[in-house]
Amino acid sequence: MPEALTGVKDEAAEAEAKVVFTPSGRRGTFPVGTNLLQAARDLGVDLDSVCGGRGICGRCQITISTGRFAKFGLESAAGHLSAFSANEQRYKDRRGLAEERRLGCHATVQGDLVIDVPPDSQVHKQVVRKRAEVRDITVNPAVRLHYVEVEKPDMHHPTGDFERLATALREQWGLGELESDVRILQKLQKSLREGDWKATVAIHRKERIIAIWPGFRGKAYGLAYDVGSTTVAAHLADLSTGEVVASVGVMNPQIRFGEDLMSRVSYAMMNPGGDIELTEAVREAVNRLVADAAAEAGIAADDILNATFVGNPIMHHLLLGIDPVELGGAPFALATNRAQTLWASEIGLAVNPDARVYFLPCIAGHVGADAAGVILSETPYLSDDTVLIVDVGTNAEIVLGNRERILAASSPTGPAFEGAQIVCGQRAAPGAIERVRIDPETLEARVRVIGCDLWSDEPGFDAATGDTGVTGICGSGIIEALAEMYLAGLIRPDGTIDGGLGGRTDRLQAEDRTFSYRLYRAGERDIRIYQVDVRAIQLAKAALYAGARLLMDRLRIAAPDRIVLAGAFGTHIEPKYAMILGMIPDCALDKVTSAGNAAGTGATIALLDQAARDEIERVVRGIEKVETAVEPEFQRHFVDAMALPHATADYPHLSRQVTLPARLADDGGAVAESGGRRRGRRRR
Amino acid sequence: MPEALTGVKDEAAEAEAKVVFTPSGRRGTFPVGTNLLQAARDLGVDLDSVCGGRGICGRCQITISTGRFAKFGLESAAGHLSAFSANEQRYKDRRGLAEERRLGCHATVQGDLVIDVPPDSQVHKQVVRKRAEVRDITVNPAVRLHYVEVEKPDMHHPTGDFERLATALREQWGLGELESDVRILQKLQKSLREGDWKATVAIHRKERIIAIWPGFRGKAYGLAYDVGSTTVAAHLADLSTGEVVASVGVMNPQIRFGEDLMSRVSYAMMNPGGDIELTEAVREAVNRLVADAAAEAGIAADDILNATFVGNPIMHHLLLGIDPVELGGAPFALATNRAQTLWASEIGLAVNPDARVYFLPCIAGHVGADAAGVILSETPYLSDDTVLIVDVGTNAEIVLGNRERILAASSPTGPAFEGAQIVCGQRAAPGAIERVRIDPETLEARVRVIGCDLWSDEPGFDAATGDTGVTGICGSGIIEALAEMYLAGLIRPDGTIDGGLGGRTDRLQAEDRTFSYRLYRAGERDIRIYQVDVRAIQLAKAALYAGARLLMDRLRIAAPDRIVLAGAFGTHIEPKYAMILGMIPDCALDKVTSAGNAAGTGATIALLDQAARDEIERVVRGIEKVETAVEPEFQRHFVDAMALPHATADYPHLSRQVTLPARLADDGGAVAESGGRRRGRRRR
Repeated sequence: MPEALTGVKDEAAEAEAKVVFTPSGRRGTFPVGTNLLQAARDLGVDLDSVCGGRGICGRCQITISTGRFAKFGLESAAGHLSAFSANEQRYKDRRGLAEERRLGCHATVQGDLVIDVPPDSQVHKQVVRKRAEVRDITVNPAVRLHYVEVEKPDMHHPTGDFERLATALREQWGLGELESDVRILQKLQKSLREGDWKATVAIHRKERIIAIWPGFRGKAYGLAYDVGSTTVAAHLADLSTGEVVASVGVMNPQIRFGEDLMSRVSYAMMNPGGDIELTEAVREAVNRLVADAAAEAGIAADDILNATFVGNPIMHHLLLGIDPVELGGAPFALATNRAQTLWASEIGLAVNPDARVYFLPCIAGHVGADAAGVILSETPYLSDDTVLIVDVGTNAEIVLGNRERILAASSPTGPAFEGAQIVCGQRAAPGAIERVRIDPETLEARVRVIGCDLWSDEPGFDAATGDTGVTGICGSGIIEALAEMYLAGLIRPDGTIDGGLGGRTDRLQAEDRTFSYRLYRAGERDIRIYQVDVRAIQLAKAALYAGARLLMDRLRIAAPDRIVLAGAFGTHIEPKYAMILGMIPDCALDKVTSAGNAAGTGATIALLDQAARDEIERVVRGIEKVETAVEPEFQRHFVDAMALPHATADYPHLSRQVTLPARLADDGGAVAESGGRRRGRRRR
Repeated sequence: MPEALTGVKDEAAEAEAKVVFTPSGRRGTFPVGTNLLQAARDLGVDLDSVCGGRGICGRCQITISTGRFAKFGLESAAGHLSAFSANEQRYKDRRGLAEERRLGCHATVQGDLVIDVPPDSQVHKQVVRKRAEVRDITVNPAVRLHYVEVEKPDMHHPTGDFERLATALREQWGLGELESDVRILQKLQKSLREGDWKATVAIHRKERIIAIWPGFRGKAYGLAYDVGSTTVAAHLADLSTGEVVASVGVMNPQIRFGEDLMSRVSYAMMNPGGDIELTEAVREAVNRLVADAAAEAGIAADDILNATFVGNPIMHHLLLGIDPVELGGAPFALATNRAQTLWASEIGLAVNPDARVYFLPCIAGHVGADAAGVILSETPYLSDDTVLIVDVGTNAEIVLGNRERILAASSPTGPAFEGAQIVCGQRAAPGAIERVRIDPETLEARVRVIGCDLWSDEPGFDAATGDTGVTGICGSGIIEALAEMYLAGLIRPDGTIDGGLGGRTDRLQAEDRTFSYRLYRAGERDIRIYQVDVRAIQLAKAALYAGARLLMDRLRIAAPDRIVLAGAFGTHIEPKYAMILGMIPDCALDKVTSAGNAAGTGATIALLDQAARDEIERVVRGIEKVETAVEPEFQRHFVDAMALPHATADYPHLSRQVTLPARLADDGGAVAESGGRRRGRRRR
């Protein structure tokens, strides 16, 4: 019968109400009785749900926004939302529900409403980051849980359990064609029957069912790994909230095969099966972190359904079980520069064996997935400013660019920045000198060590450093020591320790034909800076600068707008000292920031936001790779960069804050005077 | 410079020649000097190549078809093909080349030519089948080999080895985006360097690199499995020629857990881990066949890169490691009814671990991938005739249909047809009675046994059967014995052994209140047919007929146009006797054929022709499944089908060749008279 004759349509029209959702501002008119999850879905409002509206998961919590009715021209709210239902009460009794909160799937529209979706109820939640220059992380994980109710088998219409599950997922969740592994088929029938035809499945990228459990399951976790040559670190995150629930780290046990990367590759080359030993060692560390993170968060390893990895190319290859021998010499060919998605079991990762694992792409033979992670974290490809990002390890990974163009290179800095090749050098650990000040008048030095807040000339320093005492000097300490020596005139612009000042201090001491300077007397033992130390740092910083300079030449800029220091070393050095030594080009000091473990942050972003994976893969494909070893200009830049801070480059910003010693005699006037005029000019 | 000014174009036009390819008849004009592989590719002529035109693989052999020049209006051939090249001579010396054969990649066009592509040089070769009613098999395997030359890494343009391989495959083979497993990445770098940047890759369905070898490799093999409850059989095929190079079989070692399928499922249900034992047992058999087939063909198991499987649902599930418990009782839910493609390693198949494995789809809980194999082999979906296909095992799988509609069912025949539940029954083996004739006048029987060509009343029979003697009666023997007894009046249409004839023969003997008939006296022991035997066969044949009849009802036909008897049992029984007993509906006897192991043939087709996989998946999705257990009509059909040949159904075709005894008294006139009129009429 036509509606006009029955009057049904008119009645329906009377029983409708307006609903406005905040903060999105989306609005619509719905029949009285519509639940708010349904209304939100109809309007495309970002309201979460795992159980699909069955009052189990509590993800669709909303509040009524009584105060804002007038703003939207609506009447006040009394009675406009249905009464608190038995289902909501059951949820509240079992799992708790704040006073003003309602379950969107059970609260129904009874009159005009303004409904607020709190941040924790949004599907695409934001994880807010503290630094202004980087964007927040959207929680949009590759692995999602879906609660589903499956039809029982019917002999009149025989279909497989899997096909009925897929149908239910299509009908209840709008999911398309789904694949699955045989391991799911092996568990499927039992899970469906144990849960009385209710189950929760984990789905990877809307394509593949990777896990199934009987009944409802609300939590899934992921691990983001940063696998460094020295340390392996991981963050365990709740994939629904994006919250990091545990952060763990361990020394890379590969150190027993060689302190630095190249000696490990040599080990693999010299010893049959050595690559397998290295692979087993790093996988052992990675699995230890699974256990540690799960224990710290109080979850089972089996609850971990996704993992992401960043690391340098050698760690990347070894984790994947690829012999890194080709990365040990020219032409440094990667096995692949694509991102990899595989099963946890394929790399022996002791999480849920059906978990998926994602490796960010490597960029080139020396520029790894760790650099991809840094780029994903720092997003130079979204920046109007031209950003220079340096991540210093045995190789410095250098990225330069902006939203139009990104270049990447690596430079062979060697391990000097990490305290190796330095006579009194040591790893960053309690007792290591990390801060140095030298009085330019007296040429006296004072130091601070890791694990103690006092300077060495302050009362109580000896007591505070205790049994450990002062044991050596770490990477950031060397930078400061050399920069302070340079500012005090103890080191000349060409890097020579100036023995001619020996009359003014007993800290200088002749060593064969060179000199050394005593930073600190630790009991019987002197901690000194030797000429070889200065040379080692000069070589390292010249390599770093020359790499950055090559990229700047390509972009035809004299200086970047911003500099980001990434990695542990970047976190600890003082930008001013790095610039005084000429490690990095000139830049306003307030535009030099430390990104901390940006590679690890990149891994976490890829874990929480599947769109970020596509994004970094796209960006990496577009990156221009510069191989410093075959660039003829590199050698010239390197030689020029040996001087402190540089033979020719200007440091106008730095010169405004620091009085730099005059340049080498043949160079003419001081750097501070000549610099300002050239700032911002294009080089070619 | 424009061509018109240089005259180059005119010169080129002068130096062109016509080429006709047979048998395709494709023709075109090519510059002199074009090689014939290139010409064939340009014209879309089906000319094979693995090495991509490098004179290594010898797949592109052609002959000059001198005699047919006039037919195509071309001049004679002298000098129209380039002289035999050094490359061809090298190939000939190394691998042999028939006198008239040339390598298409090195023989070049010098004048007008008619070129014949012999069948073994075609990409899509045909494997010719002997039976008229089935189509030939196209060789179009899922796994193909491609020889490829890869660019070396270049530090100026750093890319991964995998990406350069993919580029080479795109440029040299026109392949698109390719995936690979991490296992390929683990072998990739070594393979490329060992082969000096020449390699052969195996590619699955143009999508995924599954294997790589240094240098050239010309052969790949596949295994097609038919996994039955009693025996497991496999064909090893050369994936390039389609030739079956080894056929092997083994008893299913699961028999130690139970003779029939249901007792094995019970074992799995009663014993924790029993399903795993069953899985291990069948996988052990499957792996034994890998070794046997490889040994028989003289190849390595590692050369086997693809495998296909058919089997009943329980074997299908067990092979996949899925507990078959749900298939042991109503509602007989399959874990999945989709085809499965997975890694050999996932089912522990001891071929190349990177081989892909394909399971044909199951149709329903009792109608397995074996039935899908039968359908693929017999192609009822391409038939204008309506075909009934029966494959008899413990369950009979029944398929009925034509190009418009296909129905499938299974019927619980029990193991009587296999000689079980028969007092003197035994498996088909030497000494088992397989043929029986009974003289209707004397009521004397003569028999023939497996392994002996003589009848028992012929001289030398005892000597010929030797030490084995006559040991029992197998499935096909029982069918003949009962049919002959029925024709001789020894069995009444209701299945009763007629003791009233005892006066005419001493072979009848009273047993409590029933009678038995002696088929043969083997020394001290009689081989007899008992009343219980007749009842067991009546139950089995009634189930089979009733299942077929349900499907005929659905299609509204009284009889099929053709009948195909599949499986070992179908191969050995005489269609006439099957019809006399009413196992199958009436049909012209010359339209009843035996398909042999059609399920295994289906597995072989799916192995050799990837398009057949898509085809059977599409067909299976469209099949109407009929579950006999829930069809109310089944019971009535079953009861009617207990009589010999049937209480009501007509056998007009049969009656023309065999004089059937009169029907039961209450049925009126003889079958032969009433039948003809109803033939071909629609039932509803």
